[in-house]
Amino acid sequence: MKKPLINTVVIIGVGLIGGSFALALKKAALVERVIGIDLDSKNLELALKLGIIDEASNSLVAGLNQANLVFIAVPACSIPDLIKRIISHIPLGCIITDAGSVKSELVNVCESLMPPGIHFVGGHPIAGTEHSGAAAAFATLYHNRRCILTPTATTDQDALNIVTALWQAAGSSVEYMDSLAHDRIFAAVSHLPHMVAFALVHAVDRSAEEEENIMAFSAGGFRDFTRIASSDPLMWRDIALMNREALLDMLDRYSMEFNNLRDRIASSDSDWLEDFFKTSKRLRDGIS
Amino acid sequence: MKKPLINTVVIIGVGLIGGSFALALKKAALVERVIGIDLDSKNLELALKLGIIDEASNSLVAGLNQANLVFIAVPACSIPDLIKRIISHIPLGCIITDAGSVKSELVNVCESLMPPGIHFVGGHPIAGTEHSGAAAAFATLYHNRRCILTPTATTDQDALNIVTALWQAAGSSVEYMDSLAHDRIFAAVSHLPHMVAFALVHAVDRSAEEEENIMAFSAGGFRDFTRIASSDPLMWRDIALMNREALLDMLDRYSMEFNNLRDRIASSDSDWLEDFFKTSKRLRDGIS
Repeated sequence: MKKPLINTVVIIGVGLIGGSFALALKKAALVERVIGIDLDSKNLELALKLGIIDEASNSLVAGLNQANLVFIAVPACSIPDLIKRIISHIPLGCIITDAGSVKSELVNVCESLMPPGIHFVGGHPIAGTEHSGAAAAFATLYHNRRCILTPTATTDQDALNIVTALWQAAGSSVEYMDSLAHDRIFAAVSHLPHMVAFALVHAVDRSAEEEENIMAFSAGGFRDFTRIASSDPLMWRDIALMNREALLDMLDRYSMEFNNLRDRIASSDSDWLEDFFKTSKRLRDGIS
Repeated sequence: MKKPLINTVVIIGVGLIGGSFALALKKAALVERVIGIDLDSKNLELALKLGIIDEASNSLVAGLNQANLVFIAVPACSIPDLIKRIISHIPLGCIITDAGSVKSELVNVCESLMPPGIHFVGGHPIAGTEHSGAAAAFATLYHNRRCILTPTATTDQDALNIVTALWQAAGSSVEYMDSLAHDRIFAAVSHLPHMVAFALVHAVDRSAEEEENIMAFSAGGFRDFTRIASSDPLMWRDIALMNREALLDMLDRYSMEFNNLRDRIASSDSDWLEDFFKTSKRLRDGIS
């Protein structure tokens, strides 16, 4: 029988992300025991009942002194304070890793909180569904998905190898990336589009106060286009706060394009508009 | 046997929209004969071969003198010039209707070009696919879709009733709407989102010149979100030109929301951001 790679994994935040990670490790027989910690005791009970975790702990500290690996799957802004509260209970040699969707500032803070002999590895699995909570977790969430790890000059190589192996066992393709590059890339392809969608929903709602039929016609393409505006507000608040610099840079680049387009519409610049829309189509069709 | 409602329908522009309208009328046995006119002679041959039209005409004028109804399905900006070229060949009593996705300015111009005894009815079927040309046409494109007609004080009631009956026979639910209200509504729920998507694709492409991995990560949510940026550039040029006033008003409302969001991110206003994203989610989830 294959020996589990990790004896005790502690999952903090047993929702879609944390719960699916636990199920994937269990399925791969890479973990002996999973302890779950969650502020929501009903969610924790459910996770136990569903076999996502082997033991539940309502206290942040209980169970941590046996942890070989701690997986933190809570909103990004909460992670530094959480680490401050648990770090004195973490045994030497333990690995702490996370699933936060912003990395640069977060990784810097987390690394600064690690005492010698406890290893932090920043991670961002590119996976999710529109559902949340332990009930939404499933073992194959990370299959054929990418997981980005953001090692730094001080990252422990053995810890990085272990976290890499766990994500690979969960079915993901692991990529290493500089944390600043990560944040710039996701500011462009994810955070900016979300901000645009949030603003768009507000603007259309304001207009609907004046033009009664607007909402009746919003059921078509508008609904599909703005689906991402329905994402978790607290997660997006944290992303906006923790990826501020890269996000502001992208917001301003986008504003330049948008304002230019606005002015060309105002001046009825037919040739420019045709060219701009043709280029848009070519660029969009070029995305594999 | 049920008598056809219309003897001769002339379709100008036998693509997805014009071709599907012809097929739907034939299927409903509401038309005796369909004549197709198209600048693209290969497309016209195909339409004949596929049974979409009964006769093909490479000339704009041929066939028009027998028309009882002319359906214009060409880009909106081309419609006024097209009408100027054909109007002297249209027999008295004929109805001219269109499928342009902007209405106010277009309907005003078209009505001003009608001699006494020829009746214009502005229309906008809310239907389409990502494909174009006669090959893409099918008889059920308009099934369970809405078709907006924009009658004015001078619209002939009998002509309006006939055009209504044809769209209903094609499977659509017909709604009458003031043409200015139409343009304001579609500026909000369709034209603004398209402009946003066009600008977004440009902004991300500019950033990709500096950050090589951006396009590699654009295959996920970004691709779905920007699908509408792949729409027909010429159609969107015409919409931007012909719905300028209502569109500029919406672009500016949206900019206010977006710039406000940008400033709150810059000042790390956590409570405001949480509230803004929560409201976005509530508004978006409220769309049926």
